[in-house]
Amino acid sequence: MKRLKAKIAYDGSGFAGYQVQPESRTVQAELMKVLKNIHKGETIQVVASGRTDSKVHATGQVIHFDTPLSIPMSGWLKALNVLLPEDIRVFEIEEADPAFHARYHTARKTYRYKWDRSSIISPFTRNYMVHVKQKPNIEAMRKAAEAVLGTHDFSSFCAANTAVVDKVRTVRRLEFEEHGEELHMVIEGTGFLYNMVRIIAGTMMEIGTGRRKASEMAGIIAGADRSLAGKTAAAHGLYLENVEYES
Amino acid sequence: MKRLKAKIAYDGSGFAGYQVQPESRTVQAELMKVLKNIHKGETIQVVASGRTDSKVHATGQVIHFDTPLSIPMSGWLKALNVLLPEDIRVFEIEEADPAFHARYHTARKTYRYKWDRSSIISPFTRNYMVHVKQKPNIEAMRKAAEAVLGTHDFSSFCAANTAVVDKVRTVRRLEFEEHGEELHMVIEGTGFLYNMVRIIAGTMMEIGTGRRKASEMAGIIAGADRSLAGKTAAAHGLYLENVEYES
Repeated sequence: MKRLKAKIAYDGSGFAGYQVQPESRTVQAELMKVLKNIHKGETIQVVASGRTDSKVHATGQVIHFDTPLSIPMSGWLKALNVLLPEDIRVFEIEEADPAFHARYHTARKTYRYKWDRSSIISPFTRNYMVHVKQKPNIEAMRKAAEAVLGTHDFSSFCAANTAVVDKVRTVRRLEFEEHGEELHMVIEGTGFLYNMVRIIAGTMMEIGTGRRKASEMAGIIAGADRSLAGKTAAAHGLYLENVEYES
Repeated sequence: MKRLKAKIAYDGSGFAGYQVQPESRTVQAELMKVLKNIHKGETIQVVASGRTDSKVHATGQVIHFDTPLSIPMSGWLKALNVLLPEDIRVFEIEEADPAFHARYHTARKTYRYKWDRSSIISPFTRNYMVHVKQKPNIEAMRKAAEAVLGTHDFSSFCAANTAVVDKVRTVRRLEFEEHGEELHMVIEGTGFLYNMVRIIAGTMMEIGTGRRKASEMAGIIAGADRSLAGKTAAAHGLYLENVEYES
């Protein structure tokens, strides 16, 4: 039995999220369907670095699964990309240590949130960026980012209905990049609470558009209360970009 | 009564082409539905520079319609973009001469055909570019382009079932642009026959991948027979980019 680790990308537009759910098209279900096909009807469990919500995209999701088959890695890459639907692609696959675990051994994750500042949003980006009509003040957003960096109790940036008890996380990088009319928020951390990136993005845009002040961010974090932060930004602007593992 | 001229873009993925057809979602039908709504139930005819096929995109399609309403242009722009589905956007609208005709008065059109040369195509571009696995020889394609430029009988590059009699057209520009892994063919002409751009793109890619020689292009045109040219390239790589009018 070999444990294989793969880096995959998916367009979240056509999925009810990553995780298997009855009656819904999900990324995990599509992966398992193809692996079952390759394994002649045997069910193969697939473990990802974490689930992503409906409409959320991935450019660098990592999964693992175990297989008794002896197929060279180039064969796996080809077979998976032939059998998978076109909105999921496998970019890399390699044999991993049998003890490797795509979820438990994550060391860092990077997410990207994309806004489009065009006065009229292109019909081609409607599922891939969130339209912001008012030009945001990026300097204010960068100032607020300073308060987010580091290790904090991120209760204010966690969906209220979560079961997680320890809400302390570390944000190592929080940057805003301008690419033409696109504005990206890139955030890297040791782990993220449920909806944390989208609530940070939503709060940041409220600061960028002047509905809140950059100086409020420290107090929002310190208050450790979801009601203090801004709205959860829309799912279709979010991309899971990279997952790094303990070496 | 005023004649309005608008520049529109649409993502062709969700449409059975531009032109109204029973039981199908088309760009023209969506435009007419919204105009009927704005005109309190009155049917408003919409005329485009030309139809586009199912899955073909537009970044610069031009339409005209007549209206008895006195709405400022900024109001038209806002109303249309609020009421239209997100895969159609209006970028410009202006009052035109009452004699202006979006189809009859076209002087030049520009189309762009997009290929993706990545070894694995991104899930985000699957509806917007055509994957070409073998790296094409762009110099050969540029050499073949020289034979296409100018005024010719383009019967070899016209879908066989067309009713058009005069198949002489003028290609004024035919260029290949590289943008990272993307390869674009940009073609500008005084008019195009049905499927002409897609048959030129398909033939060019056969030249680029060595299945035909660049030197064959002149003979393909001179033969004036559809069976001499290559396959019709897939619809989803094609964009109507610009329409210019007689001044």
